[in-house]
Amino acid sequence: MHKTILAAFLLGTTATAQPMGDAQKAAMLDAAVSSAEQMAWLKDFTAGPNHVDAPHNRQNADTIARMFRDWGWQVKMAEYQVLYPTPISTALELVGPVAKKLGGQEPGIAEDATSQNLAGALPPYVAYQGDGDVTAPVVYVNYGLPADYEALARRGISVKGKIVIARYGGGWRGLKPKLAQEQGAIGCLIYSDPQQDGYGSADTYPNGGGRPPTGVQRGSVVDMTTYPGDPLTPGIGATKDAKRLTRETAATVLKIPTLPISYADATEILSRLKGAPVPQEWRGALPFHYRFGGSDDVKVHLAVKSDWSLKTVRNVIAMLPGSSKADEWVVRGNHYDGWVFGAADPLSGEVAMLSEAKGLGALWKAGWRPKRSIVYASWDGEEPGLLGSTEWVEHNLAELRQKAVIYINSDGNGRGYLGVDGSQQFTSLVSKVAGEVKDPQTGVPVIDRWRAAMRAGAFEGRRIDPDTLAAAEKGGDLPLDPLGSGSDYTAFIHHAGIPSLNVGFGGEGESAGSYHSIFDSYDHFVRWDDPGLAYGAALSKVTGRLVLNIADADVLPVRYGPLAGAARGYLTEIRSLIDNRRREDMRRAGLTADMYKLASDPRDPIAPPVAKASTPMIELAALDNAIAQLEAAAKAFDGAIAANGATLTEAQKAALNAKLKGIDQALLSPSGLPFRPWFRNVLYAPGRFTGYGAKTLPGLREAVEERRFDDANREAGIAAKAFNDYADRLNAAVGAMR
Amino acid sequence: MHKTILAAFLLGTTATAQPMGDAQKAAMLDAAVSSAEQMAWLKDFTAGPNHVDAPHNRQNADTIARMFRDWGWQVKMAEYQVLYPTPISTALELVGPVAKKLGGQEPGIAEDATSQNLAGALPPYVAYQGDGDVTAPVVYVNYGLPADYEALARRGISVKGKIVIARYGGGWRGLKPKLAQEQGAIGCLIYSDPQQDGYGSADTYPNGGGRPPTGVQRGSVVDMTTYPGDPLTPGIGATKDAKRLTRETAATVLKIPTLPISYADATEILSRLKGAPVPQEWRGALPFHYRFGGSDDVKVHLAVKSDWSLKTVRNVIAMLPGSSKADEWVVRGNHYDGWVFGAADPLSGEVAMLSEAKGLGALWKAGWRPKRSIVYASWDGEEPGLLGSTEWVEHNLAELRQKAVIYINSDGNGRGYLGVDGSQQFTSLVSKVAGEVKDPQTGVPVIDRWRAAMRAGAFEGRRIDPDTLAAAEKGGDLPLDPLGSGSDYTAFIHHAGIPSLNVGFGGEGESAGSYHSIFDSYDHFVRWDDPGLAYGAALSKVTGRLVLNIADADVLPVRYGPLAGAARGYLTEIRSLIDNRRREDMRRAGLTADMYKLASDPRDPIAPPVAKASTPMIELAALDNAIAQLEAAAKAFDGAIAANGATLTEAQKAALNAKLKGIDQALLSPSGLPFRPWFRNVLYAPGRFTGYGAKTLPGLREAVEERRFDDANREAGIAAKAFNDYADRLNAAVGAMR
Repeated sequence: MHKTILAAFLLGTTATAQPMGDAQKAAMLDAAVSSAEQMAWLKDFTAGPNHVDAPHNRQNADTIARMFRDWGWQVKMAEYQVLYPTPISTALELVGPVAKKLGGQEPGIAEDATSQNLAGALPPYVAYQGDGDVTAPVVYVNYGLPADYEALARRGISVKGKIVIARYGGGWRGLKPKLAQEQGAIGCLIYSDPQQDGYGSADTYPNGGGRPPTGVQRGSVVDMTTYPGDPLTPGIGATKDAKRLTRETAATVLKIPTLPISYADATEILSRLKGAPVPQEWRGALPFHYRFGGSDDVKVHLAVKSDWSLKTVRNVIAMLPGSSKADEWVVRGNHYDGWVFGAADPLSGEVAMLSEAKGLGALWKAGWRPKRSIVYASWDGEEPGLLGSTEWVEHNLAELRQKAVIYINSDGNGRGYLGVDGSQQFTSLVSKVAGEVKDPQTGVPVIDRWRAAMRAGAFEGRRIDPDTLAAAEKGGDLPLDPLGSGSDYTAFIHHAGIPSLNVGFGGEGESAGSYHSIFDSYDHFVRWDDPGLAYGAALSKVTGRLVLNIADADVLPVRYGPLAGAARGYLTEIRSLIDNRRREDMRRAGLTADMYKLASDPRDPIAPPVAKASTPMIELAALDNAIAQLEAAAKAFDGAIAANGATLTEAQKAALNAKLKGIDQALLSPSGLPFRPWFRNVLYAPGRFTGYGAKTLPGLREAVEERRFDDANREAGIAAKAFNDYADRLNAAVGAMR
Repeated sequence: MHKTILAAFLLGTTATAQPMGDAQKAAMLDAAVSSAEQMAWLKDFTAGPNHVDAPHNRQNADTIARMFRDWGWQVKMAEYQVLYPTPISTALELVGPVAKKLGGQEPGIAEDATSQNLAGALPPYVAYQGDGDVTAPVVYVNYGLPADYEALARRGISVKGKIVIARYGGGWRGLKPKLAQEQGAIGCLIYSDPQQDGYGSADTYPNGGGRPPTGVQRGSVVDMTTYPGDPLTPGIGATKDAKRLTRETAATVLKIPTLPISYADATEILSRLKGAPVPQEWRGALPFHYRFGGSDDVKVHLAVKSDWSLKTVRNVIAMLPGSSKADEWVVRGNHYDGWVFGAADPLSGEVAMLSEAKGLGALWKAGWRPKRSIVYASWDGEEPGLLGSTEWVEHNLAELRQKAVIYINSDGNGRGYLGVDGSQQFTSLVSKVAGEVKDPQTGVPVIDRWRAAMRAGAFEGRRIDPDTLAAAEKGGDLPLDPLGSGSDYTAFIHHAGIPSLNVGFGGEGESAGSYHSIFDSYDHFVRWDDPGLAYGAALSKVTGRLVLNIADADVLPVRYGPLAGAARGYLTEIRSLIDNRRREDMRRAGLTADMYKLASDPRDPIAPPVAKASTPMIELAALDNAIAQLEAAAKAFDGAIAANGATLTEAQKAALNAKLKGIDQALLSPSGLPFRPWFRNVLYAPGRFTGYGAKTLPGLREAVEERRFDDANREAGIAAKAFNDYADRLNAAVGAMR
């Protein structure tokens, strides 16, 4: 056993706390937040390559630790030894119909200072693909997702023994090589179609923020939908002496060589492909007619060899110990490692978090003592697979499940609207804070800008959820969307059952075009993403307020109506899904091979869809009842807080906090989700076939989607039990207020 | 007064008619239809440029006339003197930021024989734009339709004094310069974005049928939504001595110079434009980020000068006189003039029609005599503005209104599915014929292929109208969509109130990419559009059967349920339109300028939508009642035919035919449609702001759309009266069967 996190810190002498009002604390926080300072930090942090184990990344960790210490925080490095492959060599060549060398490092440009100094930067690659050296014909597979392979099969096109080329988008990057290898492909290329983040979305850098023809999106392809973190130590911290799997037995390491490429390189391949034209929805924005390929006309040589040694990730963990409720923790984090310089992703979020830390430090120095303990984590190794945060959570699982009342995450940040996803019991708190912080461009509270955007957007024809629009029109709360994956909240909410939020501004910046490339630089960021880091400061103010409000609340600032409402909404969606599936199944059953033969173009024939098991009715009554229980309990709780919250005795408050502590652990499935027991939250998960995108009531929903109907019935029961438990605990909390 | 059409023919001696069964007639028709012969005709007809007044076009008319005569038809040339401008000179240059000559004739390619011999072909131009010589900055206006100008205005962008560049699509070509000149633009360019018919839809010619970078779509921009035909003689035949407007007073001739250009040329302009980026839905498939332009950075010089002299159009009118019902005419037509060679458009349809004519001639020679008179028209001057057909209809209006029982049109034809639009009382006849003719590629009746395509398409996610899908699933009739404009049925159905059908195969050919360019050639057609003219033969068999069935029926083969059902459906749509408008108006009223200021990106601000008059309730009760009357009468009629049709006496049949004669004249509005009295059909019209696309219940619908609410109430009343009249006439026909 390792020492507990709290014990690992040398507690400061408990000076007599200076009582401070909310307004005073917020003013001191805001006074410490400086966009100019964030710009200086960002420039320094992005001066060199920041991948795991890079000298400049290690230097940033030391700098961050020193800054926290300077501001009065207690700081520890939490280090883990993880499998993190880096390329020894990568090669990509067109070998037919013409020979042409492709791939290699992205070329820099004069308008972007750091892009001209790439010493020590890794070439474009994806982490955790397999070593290999293959030459084969190329097949274009669109996004490379299951529906795409169904479409290929119906046209008689196999990728067995071929190299697939998939475009980014439609689902998480790592699913593309994973599905390709399952389909028998021997290699995989992933390119950035300009439709997604090049000239189809913005003018190309440096004229705009869009991805230039030579830009490449690096990334991880570790199978994090099975489990994130170090592939060799699932479920446990990757300490020096941890029991490890071998690379060969680690389920999340892929087998086939895979490279990400630019659209300049992709054009060399795709424009030469023969075969039938692809369906309309497979076409990107490159200026030619896309074809499937697959014949010997176009062949590619692809080779990747990686250094598979263990590397050290170093999380910088900083703490301000709590006074009256020291064993309740508010955990806040952002990662600091990047694929290259990492200006937008992640350092724009990291510098915002540092401003908060500076503000909280100033408060501490002025004598303020938070009621709850505050833990600020700067994560390492997020990019390859949420390594730092996952290993830390796994390593400290029991303590975190007991003590953490929330995890608040940020990652990249940019110009635009506030977006908050996560545990809906914090909806009203988020909206309160969003009503206090001003939007830098318009000067109104950020929630007002959001409401205006929803209303104007709906009028302009954007698809806005009707409840969301109604909320915007009535001045209601900003709804929190469910969390999938893609950042460091994953282990907290999905594995440990700790309520989590992910916070950031965006929607008007153009960082999509520099994402995971050498152009995610200071120059790009301050020109196209968040000029002057005005939104960096806004993020500090929002997230700092969330931390202050939760840390200092007598009773946790939660309301359960939105959580119960979300569960109800998810069930309604699944009922629709089932109904739609049943209708579709009936229609499919009416289709004949002959019908498709008649319907499809003889020059481009398409076979009928493969037969699928018909969707039966699923047992949802128990789940429906449980959600009704949860709704009733939530209503009782929120009502009791509204009626009595201000007049509770200290004893009642203590009893109430005790009942609420760990209540979200009720959402954890004892068995975890099918195929991936590491994921345990019955309410949300990243989708098995979406990767980053959330699936709600995931055990049930994915079982319906994947036609595992026994699983669907069982998972509905597991979710029902979870909600019943949750309702019971909530009712007990209501009892504590009587 | 001119002589009647019938009197103009020298009637053949009425030999004793040989009675023939339907099967025998169909077999003789089919025996005369030869794809190989159609290919030979097509090759001959497309050997030279075929615009109005071109020597090769005149030669084709003479050839067609000779063929009809050879096959036993009586033939007359019906000639009119029309305003038809041809370019004396066109010029287009980029004058800044670099000087570059653009425009001019499309270059030919080696793989396309006729494209290499363009002597006598007109350069790319659009007919009936204004003469002019202008130099100005360029603004990109998307499709150049009303919504686009609203979007521009909300961004503070004016086209006043500028040259607009619009892409093809979204609405009819002629609306683009018309709206541009209304907005104060001094010139207009229209280009073919590759998204619509270039590499975004098919591989480019000669590798596929898609439009190559140098391909240009010519066309007419005469304001045919006001009235088609000769601009100088609205409503009357353009005979030598007709009373003419001047060009300056003709409402349908535009004022500003306009040229169509290729996407190679458009790239030179668009890729250089400055200003804010355009909205997502404005982007085409060219490989750069589209911007609005409008500044002095990019200037263009545009000059067009036309020869505005009158030209002669020559319709080839051929007749087989009827025996027992000679004063009931079945009119069939296809145009023969093209923009250049015109292989797909229109000669692929013309050669199919000639095969029918040959077959009917063979029947005639074998002693068959049709009960009704058959008139086959080969129209000239369709491309510039439906000149030949419109002048002929206007010239013979009274006689046609009295005698024509149907007009059956075709135009271009291609590989794929049967599509028939038009007067829904012929729905069951069309489906009967579509059940008799085999699809060339699959060997099943064309209606079965259509049904399969609907069912498979619906399953694959294509939007299929629910009633259509239900019909396909139940083996029901192929529904007829309403006719808008764009071919020679226009004057028949919309001005003269003669029931009309437009018939063609398509959906699998790639003639979109050669449309109105030098590449609409024999080589393109037989390679990419209808190889072997298999579908040319299928069209002959479908349309020939329609003619035979109608010409020889004892009682016109009409059923009114589908017509009444269509009217009911259109009213239901308009109720939805009104409901949606009212909701939208309420939402708009809730929007404030401030809300848009908050919602929109300060780097790319968008003003709120302009205030609009709120949509009130419209008086629809009388119209609803009238449609109910029509439905009841239709049900009675169809029921009576089903019950008694086979046992009617000759006297009853004669009485019935007399009652049905001219029944569709009831659909004509005495006043015509608002702003365009030439269009008189209350049930359908080409849209004022769609051009080719149909608007149903157009007087009412467009009044609602354009917020002319007094007009809406009045037009609803006019339509109600028309349907009441129609129902009365139908009930009288039912009476004739008792």
